Amino acid sequence: VTLEELPTPFLAVDLDALEHNVAAMQARVPGRLRPHMKAHKCSAIAWLQMAAGAVGVTCSTTDEVTAMAAAGVGDLLLASVAADERRLGALAETAGRARVTIAVDSDEVARRAARAAREAGATLGVVVDVDIGMGRNGVASLEDGVRLADTIGGLPGLELRGVMAYEGHLVGVADRDERLRRVREAFALPLAVLAALRDRGFECPIFTGGATATYDAMPELSDVQAGTYVLMDATYDKLAPEFRHALAVVTTVTTTRPSGRFVVDAGAKRIARDLGAPSLGPGFEFVSTSEEHAVFQALDGSAPRVGDRVSVVPGHSCSTMALHNRAFGHRGGVFERALEIDARDPLA
Amino acid sequence: VTLEELPTPFLAVDLDALEHNVAAMQARVPGRLRPHMKAHKCSAIAWLQMAAGAVGVTCSTTDEVTAMAAAGVGDLLLASVAADERRLGALAETAGRARVTIAVDSDEVARRAARAAREAGATLGVVVDVDIGMGRNGVASLEDGVRLADTIGGLPGLELRGVMAYEGHLVGVADRDERLRRVREAFALPLAVLAALRDRGFECPIFTGGATATYDAMPELSDVQAGTYVLMDATYDKLAPEFRHALAVVTTVTTTRPSGRFVVDAGAKRIARDLGAPSLGPGFEFVSTSEEHAVFQALDGSAPRVGDRVSVVPGHSCSTMALHNRAFGHRGGVFERALEIDARDPLA
Repeated sequence: VTLEELPTPFLAVDLDALEHNVAAMQARVPGRLRPHMKAHKCSAIAWLQMAAGAVGVTCSTTDEVTAMAAAGVGDLLLASVAADERRLGALAETAGRARVTIAVDSDEVARRAARAAREAGATLGVVVDVDIGMGRNGVASLEDGVRLADTIGGLPGLELRGVMAYEGHLVGVADRDERLRRVREAFALPLAVLAALRDRGFECPIFTGGATATYDAMPELSDVQAGTYVLMDATYDKLAPEFRHALAVVTTVTTTRPSGRFVVDAGAKRIARDLGAPSLGPGFEFVSTSEEHAVFQALDGSAPRVGDRVSVVPGHSCSTMALHNRAFGHRGGVFERALEIDARDPLA
Repeated sequence: VTLEELPTPFLAVDLDALEHNVAAMQARVPGRLRPHMKAHKCSAIAWLQMAAGAVGVTCSTTDEVTAMAAAGVGDLLLASVAADERRLGALAETAGRARVTIAVDSDEVARRAARAAREAGATLGVVVDVDIGMGRNGVASLEDGVRLADTIGGLPGLELRGVMAYEGHLVGVADRDERLRRVREAFALPLAVLAALRDRGFECPIFTGGATATYDAMPELSDVQAGTYVLMDATYDKLAPEFRHALAVVTTVTTTRPSGRFVVDAGAKRIARDLGAPSLGPGFEFVSTSEEHAVFQALDGSAPRVGDRVSVVPGHSCSTMALHNRAFGHRGGVFERALEIDARDPLA
């Protein structure tokens, strides 16, 4: 079976590139890689990463934690803050059968998490989430971090395991040296929180953060959360050229114009538009998407023909995976295995 | 059961508002409404529209056509151009058990569609798709429209049923009078194509186009394709205030800041970001989304508390529905029925 026999649009994963990426990141941060599965929401890919030596998996939602535990991954980090009590209840249930560590950034969330853990008769691990400039979740000062750690330390059901920070506002800095320098500067705060907590007698084995374009900025990290490297996209390729494009949305040309403009049969419902523009590579300019269409311009004026297939590299692979229920793994266009995107939706 | 008992984030549909919208549009274009189900991808909502008097359903993908036929809708218009031969084969199969009409804008697609129809032993209805300025699909001139109609007329398996155009580039014109005037101007070309085809002896009962903000611009339309009106969103509310917000993503506040900035537990993977910004209504400013987070600012500085629930109105309801597998229909917060988003994914 070749990909040519599948109706468009569909997600194609180049398994050679995927395996290259899994091995390449593993070799760069051996013993410290906890890949972020928000990048694929696919337990089959998570298991390739685990088999290569990942220490566990990072998740962005409680549904992802539940799905990964159901798929047998035993060590899970939720790198987002959950405040909904039913969500915390589900995390605590999962903590009865897997090691679960969650990010916490307020007393209220700590109290809710502790209550959920006690009700489930489980222990939830906790990392103090520190904001290093992204302005999203996280405590914003050393004092707040220490105060929160003391709260967590006093709550039965919780176990303080360390400190987390995420440099999301810096991963797009174009110059690599400047990028890494600014990440190291930003991590001064979580490093200080970590030192203070260890001074106060908390063991704190976990110090976690990191991304595909910044995985080597902080050798102090115990758990590097990089995710996008495994599939890559048209946004990250300039930032982390050591990894290969493994993901494409295969489309069919439906309309062409004499000017070289043409339309393909996948739009924002199949190629995520929350970050970056999709790409057909050199020679083509992205024009626009609507829900089920994307428009490109052939720069030399010679568009492909109606019915031709073209492979679109998404601007954001993580969100694109979440738009499909399945990807088709292939080698050189020959279909090898389906990759179910099984952590896409709530299990229940 | 109340919505309070459901874990966030989830989609909530206000059934009173939904029913108002179904009835309101039906009353405005009686006998001429063919609602676009790309707005919801939900056969239960499609059936509410059919029960109110819709003449059929408009679809944007072959998967939607297949799903709607499986759900028993008997008259289906694909308002997109399909060029993939397997997709055209699926449409022709469906045409064996439902009336299926598809948009065509080139000889190549017409030939492929005719071949698929003959192979399935079915008849595919065709409308000539005319570009009226959006620069996406469609023939661009009267001559091309007539030439394509002659091709279609000569192809066994196809039945020419009329003309289609879509004013997508004009639906956002803020001033209502200017918007309707410009739509009427733009429709001069498809009106001319329609007249020319009728002159040549083609019956052409279908003249289709229209949207939520422009449904009354063209009384000549036999089939008005408006879709968003049924759920509405933060983009369309200024353009079509005669319809009510029926859709929200219910979220929980995970983090607050002294400045009044706060974070909720749904981002671009649950609240589509391809069009327009999500809204919490007056008093709040949208700041940003990431994949699983949205950030808002309380304008008076008083953010809700951690653990509070807030209902986010998406910037684009159509794409937001496609991010969920289910919506929860309620009246005044009391759960009444699940709405499965059953045309979201390929059936097979």
